[in-house]
Amino acid sequence: MPTYDHDSAVTVIGLGPMGRTLAGTFLDAGLRVTVWNRTPGRDRDLVERGATSAASAAEAVAASPLTVVCVVNYDASDAVLRQDDVTDALKGRTVVNLTADTPARARDTAAWAAEHGIRYLDGAIMTPTTAIGTPDGVFLHSGPSDLYREHQDVLFALGGSHTHLGEDVGRAASYDIALLDIFWTAMAGYAHAVAIARAEGITARELAPFASGISAILPALFEEFAGDVDEGTYSGELNPITSGVSTMAHIIEASESHGIEATVMRAAEGQARRAIGLGHETDGFMRVTEMLGRPRR
Amino acid sequence: MPTYDHDSAVTVIGLGPMGRTLAGTFLDAGLRVTVWNRTPGRDRDLVERGATSAASAAEAVAASPLTVVCVVNYDASDAVLRQDDVTDALKGRTVVNLTADTPARARDTAAWAAEHGIRYLDGAIMTPTTAIGTPDGVFLHSGPSDLYREHQDVLFALGGSHTHLGEDVGRAASYDIALLDIFWTAMAGYAHAVAIARAEGITARELAPFASGISAILPALFEEFAGDVDEGTYSGELNPITSGVSTMAHIIEASESHGIEATVMRAAEGQARRAIGLGHETDGFMRVTEMLGRPRR
Repeated sequence: MPTYDHDSAVTVIGLGPMGRTLAGTFLDAGLRVTVWNRTPGRDRDLVERGATSAASAAEAVAASPLTVVCVVNYDASDAVLRQDDVTDALKGRTVVNLTADTPARARDTAAWAAEHGIRYLDGAIMTPTTAIGTPDGVFLHSGPSDLYREHQDVLFALGGSHTHLGEDVGRAASYDIALLDIFWTAMAGYAHAVAIARAEGITARELAPFASGISAILPALFEEFAGDVDEGTYSGELNPITSGVSTMAHIIEASESHGIEATVMRAAEGQARRAIGLGHETDGFMRVTEMLGRPRR
Repeated sequence: MPTYDHDSAVTVIGLGPMGRTLAGTFLDAGLRVTVWNRTPGRDRDLVERGATSAASAAEAVAASPLTVVCVVNYDASDAVLRQDDVTDALKGRTVVNLTADTPARARDTAAWAAEHGIRYLDGAIMTPTTAIGTPDGVFLHSGPSDLYREHQDVLFALGGSHTHLGEDVGRAASYDIALLDIFWTAMAGYAHAVAIARAEGITARELAPFASGISAILPALFEEFAGDVDEGTYSGELNPITSGVSTMAHIIEASESHGIEATVMRAAEGQARRAIGLGHETDGFMRVTEMLGRPRR
């Protein structure tokens, strides 16, 4: 871990679970940390550990060359940053916005920042709070490369891996959305699977090692299927989409036979059936990727 | 790997990609293998490798003390096994049905087998054909323990891990359904994520390492959340369900802004919103597990 001179200061706006963890990790790394949160009283523990509690958002951003923002969404981020006194205080300084929202909101905020002489990077945190400050943390960044290079030492204090995805400031949010799409869909599948298991007299703990086992095969499959999509091959030789649909129908039947709703799986099955209906019955499941953005007939 | 005496014979019914792989793996292990498939001509390669091609299903099952069935579903399995000559030939012999279907169908077939003096185990294969014959294969079995013990050496010839889940013959299918629920929901999430990424100018190959990364955190989370469900704690301290819903709304917005349908995520979001509506807004996402089987208000 690098050491920081006494001018290495960072401000953290937003003290939810993630914001508090970011601030605490910066403190542990030896940086001078100023914190602010809309609802007061969230900074007590951090102040005990050496953070400075700012009386206002404007005072907070004025305290450091770099402000890291981590709030619930860009409505909340705008509500703080786009106040006149805060905007004025940020002029010539850098904001790294680690708030999660859509790529469009990230690009909109970057345009606002450019109008007001604020240097702006957008980022996304892909791992839970418990991974921050450890080698497991995953941070994505996008925006001007020179600005990223200027601040990367401070960002690296958060531990984990940091990837700069390019100059398009919306790119981190695009990755974030796509990756959280995978995550939350999988979580919905897990919750549903546990509901079926329990209806069959199987506890969540009994299912868990096998659930972990089947999810452990996903990383390699995701890598394998990526080529399928980029080349448009969608090979179904080993596992045709018809076989997937057959399984999905079993899942829906077993679920609904217990009075457990199966709306998520019904939606997934519908996408696959639509691909089959359009003549792709010998392709693999990934063919649905091309169906999702196509107008329904 | 154990060696088999010359009486170690196994019949494989069903020569789709998985059935062919099972038969080939039994051959590689040195067993005498008889094969049969409804559509002829699928056994050429296996016969060249030493398998015996039976002229009928009845002849096939008569050739071995143990018949492994792996066809598309239990309609197909019934269509073969419940013919009079096949049923007669199976009397006193053992069927291990590795066909995937619902727990109800497995229990129904076990009852039919018992009526006809056929010894019956049900099973499920949780890994792709490429894992068969390797340490990565995962096989689940259920039904009479003594019958499982009697045939486990032959089953172990398929490699990988074999777990006997208990005497309830439907249990392997219950696990199968729950685990494939996770798998196919996650696949639907991946296909959708790739569609969003491509609309944002990101190739599937660019996304893949990060997609693998985020799916790699699932196994540990699944284990962690299992206790939450079994104890009914559903802690949302680090990640409340409201935060998940906020993310899901961003995903839906980003998806539909590109004309990409988001029916799967809309269904998942609806489940989470329903949990919030019922007063669980400070709980974690896993609270939806309890909502899925509850009548809508």
